[in-house]
Amino acid sequence: MPVPDEQIFPHATGAALSTVEAHKEPQELVFYAGWFCPYVQRSWICLEERGIPYQYKEVNPYKKEKHFLDINPKGLVPAVEYHGKALYESLVLCEFFEDAYPDHKPTILPGDAYIKAYARIWVDFASKSFLPAFMRLMQSQEQDKRDAARTELYEALRKFAAQVKGPYFLGEEFSLVDVAIVPWITRDYILAENRGYKREDVSAEWKRYADHVEQRESVVKTKSDKDKYAEIYGRYLRDEAQSEAAKAIRAGRVIP
Amino acid sequence: MPVPDEQIFPHATGAALSTVEAHKEPQELVFYAGWFCPYVQRSWICLEERGIPYQYKEVNPYKKEKHFLDINPKGLVPAVEYHGKALYESLVLCEFFEDAYPDHKPTILPGDAYIKAYARIWVDFASKSFLPAFMRLMQSQEQDKRDAARTELYEALRKFAAQVKGPYFLGEEFSLVDVAIVPWITRDYILAENRGYKREDVSAEWKRYADHVEQRESVVKTKSDKDKYAEIYGRYLRDEAQSEAAKAIRAGRVIP
Repeated sequence: MPVPDEQIFPHATGAALSTVEAHKEPQELVFYAGWFCPYVQRSWICLEERGIPYQYKEVNPYKKEKHFLDINPKGLVPAVEYHGKALYESLVLCEFFEDAYPDHKPTILPGDAYIKAYARIWVDFASKSFLPAFMRLMQSQEQDKRDAARTELYEALRKFAAQVKGPYFLGEEFSLVDVAIVPWITRDYILAENRGYKREDVSAEWKRYADHVEQRESVVKTKSDKDKYAEIYGRYLRDEAQSEAAKAIRAGRVIP
Repeated sequence: MPVPDEQIFPHATGAALSTVEAHKEPQELVFYAGWFCPYVQRSWICLEERGIPYQYKEVNPYKKEKHFLDINPKGLVPAVEYHGKALYESLVLCEFFEDAYPDHKPTILPGDAYIKAYARIWVDFASKSFLPAFMRLMQSQEQDKRDAARTELYEALRKFAAQVKGPYFLGEEFSLVDVAIVPWITRDYILAENRGYKREDVSAEWKRYADHVEQRESVVKTKSDKDKYAEIYGRYLRDEAQSEAAKAIRAGRVIP
């Protein structure tokens, strides 16, 4: 969720605030984040899972520091500064943490080449099939479009859930597949409260998976208080959001 | 380019035919391909670059072998069978070849963690920014939409070209960034002949890069005769193509 809307609460709250407080000291790796952003949460979960030392810096989307824009002209979060150079894109960052910090365990990608590729297929599925349907359901204003988006979302989630080995996607080990989808699982109450979505209506497998994965410590530690998200998602629900993702969905384009 | 249209010439021709002929023997790795498909070409280039032993199998999109559908129910190409198990998605396969055959040189991804992540950002850019604009320009029927798509395509290519170190994207070494975009460079004459696209109108940097990268041996070796592509791309130019990619662009959706 690149350039987000105005009126965003200025910092993390709840469990995420404690995590931020524990990462104020300067480090080789600076993590530029927005507490509210699900893409940020993907990368943040990986940092927490793997115990990588990082300095958390909240980027106020309307008062971006010159230094941040200097290293990352697109001004997007999540981004990192590593030895003075910038990287961005949530999943690219997750893989970068694997490559740059190989001694930090557990890894988020399996060691076996076949299983790693299999995992990447489903990470890709989360981004290409699940996410656009989730966004369309949230932003749709007419009932028929909401119904179509919900059907599409349920179909995507059933395909995904049918592959879950349990308790995590690949089995006992939490992996990048879980990371790629869990920020939206923690936010699916927005669809439940406003768009007639129910985990159990997708499938029993989906409900069991979603109920479990959202309890993961790294997921809980990167969540802010629920009421603070309400302002942001209200704008999505009224289809007034101006993030790049929201605009892309509105225009029938790829989420950048 | 998953399920493609009918009337496709049944096998590779020209330089690609010689490459196919050299890969008929059974191997641990079976490469399921369609000679015409740019996504197939991405994975095929990686196999050729790295000298990985593979058996080429042409998949006739309307007469899929039962065995192929058994291992890959989606029936998409490119796909591989590796120890009896299927994998698909062009870029996932490129990375799989890196992980499963680490001793085959040259590698397609840089060893340095930062440069690897930087490369992935631009691979992602090729898929998300360049490709949809290319497809929209090809499929647009009205002049104003063609003009808008061409402008969008040029903007994406200028951003890309501005990052090219030369002669390849990352410098002296051919990499996954080049692989991700070159199949469409070899096909951009379709836009030149039908949509007013000119490499030199993008930028001098783009023309220099495109002219160079399409000469790479692995690219040339995976190309069929130009006239055999005409039937396929005629359907795209008339916006009659029924591939999943073509339908996605028409519907304003993500290319699957």
